[in-house]
Amino acid sequence: MVIHKTSYRLTFRDVDSMGILYYARYFFLFEIGRVEWMRDEGFSYRDMEKKMQQSLPVTKADCHYIAPISYDEIAIVRTEIAAWTQTTIRFAHTIHREGQDELCAKGQVELGCLAHGDKRPSAIPQELITILNNQAREKRGRLR
Amino acid sequence: MVIHKTSYRLTFRDVDSMGILYYARYFFLFEIGRVEWMRDEGFSYRDMEKKMQQSLPVTKADCHYIAPISYDEIAIVRTEIAAWTQTTIRFAHTIHREGQDELCAKGQVELGCLAHGDKRPSAIPQELITILNNQAREKRGRLR
Amino acid sequence: MVIHKTSYRLTFRDVDSMGILYYARYFFLFEIGRVEWMRDEGFSYRDMEKKMQQSLPVTKADCHYIAPISYDEIAIVRTEIAAWTQTTIRFAHTIHREGQDELCAKGQVELGCLAHGDKRPSAIPQELITILNNQAREKRGRLR
Amino acid sequence: MVIHKTSYRLTFRDVDSMGILYYARYFFLFEIGRVEWMRDEGFSYRDMEKKMQQSLPVTKADCHYIAPISYDEIAIVRTEIAAWTQTTIRFAHTIHREGQDELCAKGQVELGCLAHGDKRPSAIPQELITILNNQAREKRGRLR
Repeated sequence: MVIHKTSYRLTFRDVDSMGILYYARYFFLFEIGRVEWMRDEGFSYRDMEKKMQQSLPVTKADCHYIAPISYDEIAIVRTEIAAWTQTTIRFAHTIHREGQDELCAKGQVELGCLAHGDKRPSAIPQELITILNNQAREKRGRLR
Repeated sequence: MVIHKTSYRLTFRDVDSMGILYYARYFFLFEIGRVEWMRDEGFSYRDMEKKMQQSLPVTKADCHYIAPISYDEIAIVRTEIAAWTQTTIRFAHTIHREGQDELCAKGQVELGCLAHGDKRPSAIPQELITILNNQAREKRGRLR
Repeated sequence: MVIHKTSYRLTFRDVDSMGILYYARYFFLFEIGRVEWMRDEGFSYRDMEKKMQQSLPVTKADCHYIAPISYDEIAIVRTEIAAWTQTTIRFAHTIHREGQDELCAKGQVELGCLAHGDKRPSAIPQELITILNNQAREKRGRLR
Repeated sequence: MVIHKTSYRLTFRDVDSMGILYYARYFFLFEIGRVEWMRDEGFSYRDMEKKMQQSLPVTKADCHYIAPISYDEIAIVRTEIAAWTQTTIRFAHTIHREGQDELCAKGQVELGCLAHGDKRPSAIPQELITILNNQAREKRGRLR
């Protein structure tokens, strides 16, 4: 089981009038974590879209907000696979402030797979299945 | 039980490279619905922040994505109270395309209450409790 | 000469930690003004993209910031044609707070025209030229 | 004269339905460049706001858009001082794609200085003036 880690420094466009990360933008951090997870595993989301004419639309997302993150602080996003099947991947994310143990937020994002041509659900590309088998075999088939 | 309805036309900044509403931005639509719910009931979130030095931070949020909404389409956001206590309000939202029956997304957003001074949880302002009692008495105390 | 007017209420995602509209987001208001100008004149930007396989990319944009606008205030965007040629349109925008005379910001946004196929500059669709001739004939050819 | 360089990989929230960076978001890249310029020079914008109760609001901004940047590409932002006085700083920015010579965009952003107490224009903090004198003495007083 592999946990990937990426970081992002908050800018003015990220915070609200309280000076803290706006609640919808945690999902942007989750996206960064997700895309970096794929990139680190050698899978390019962009290439998949272009070459295979498939995309991985989000079907569910949730977040628990525990402690705020402020302007100019660095958010650390940890990403791992929570569960997966041939047609669905669920990522689990946590967010901390750099250098601190306190959990700021945690959430999950579930992706399906869509073929661009007929806009219908399709199987996840084999290249990605191979990575999931290598990195998170024990999480297979546990999606409810 | 009252359901409030508001609308929003999607602009270029709202959609991603598929031309559809980016997944994090559904929570922005939920915020519009939430604030309009309060305004329609005669409660100003802005005044609460200024006068009472309290705010209602989001503690949990989730969304199920069912059908996409595209650039230039009008999203209809319906907002109602799902549950509430003296310290927590949970809103339930649905999103449709204008003039269409198909459900595009549904989600819930839970708010706590925070006093600015000591940054500690506090009771929801009485003015808002009165509104909740009037509009959604049957949803009281059902939060788990 | 016609001036179009549209309004937008600021949400939490629009303001920064000072509680005022973030400087990049004025250009989002300009976009709303621009698209509404076209819609009011009977021209659908979305249809142009789909049917004619052309788009109107921004080539230049500027803004002068004069007075701030705060969370929950309503911004009034006024939009008119500053100048145009067969290949370029320049819009001029002003922003006020609803019900107030003070100018909050003013700016200009210049659009070219691009054919999707060869990704080369092309002439503006005739339908739009006709509107420009009707509404802003005196502003023709004054682009420098 | 010092030119600072920072990089940013485009995510889904940054691009529009053409898959390219949305025009308003170039100003977000300029902000990243500006804040990193200050940080590299040992000046913390955040500390200035907190300790000195001053901020540097944007008074003017412009951008020329020359070539698009796409989803997942890395934008390189170069930032230097274009001009400054005791009360104003003008930054000049360019944007390229990583590893490419072609200019994608260039723009300028002018900042004033505001005291939080009386909300009036004030002199730029001496600490920042010292940096400007060291790094861009020849650009002093050339603001029109």
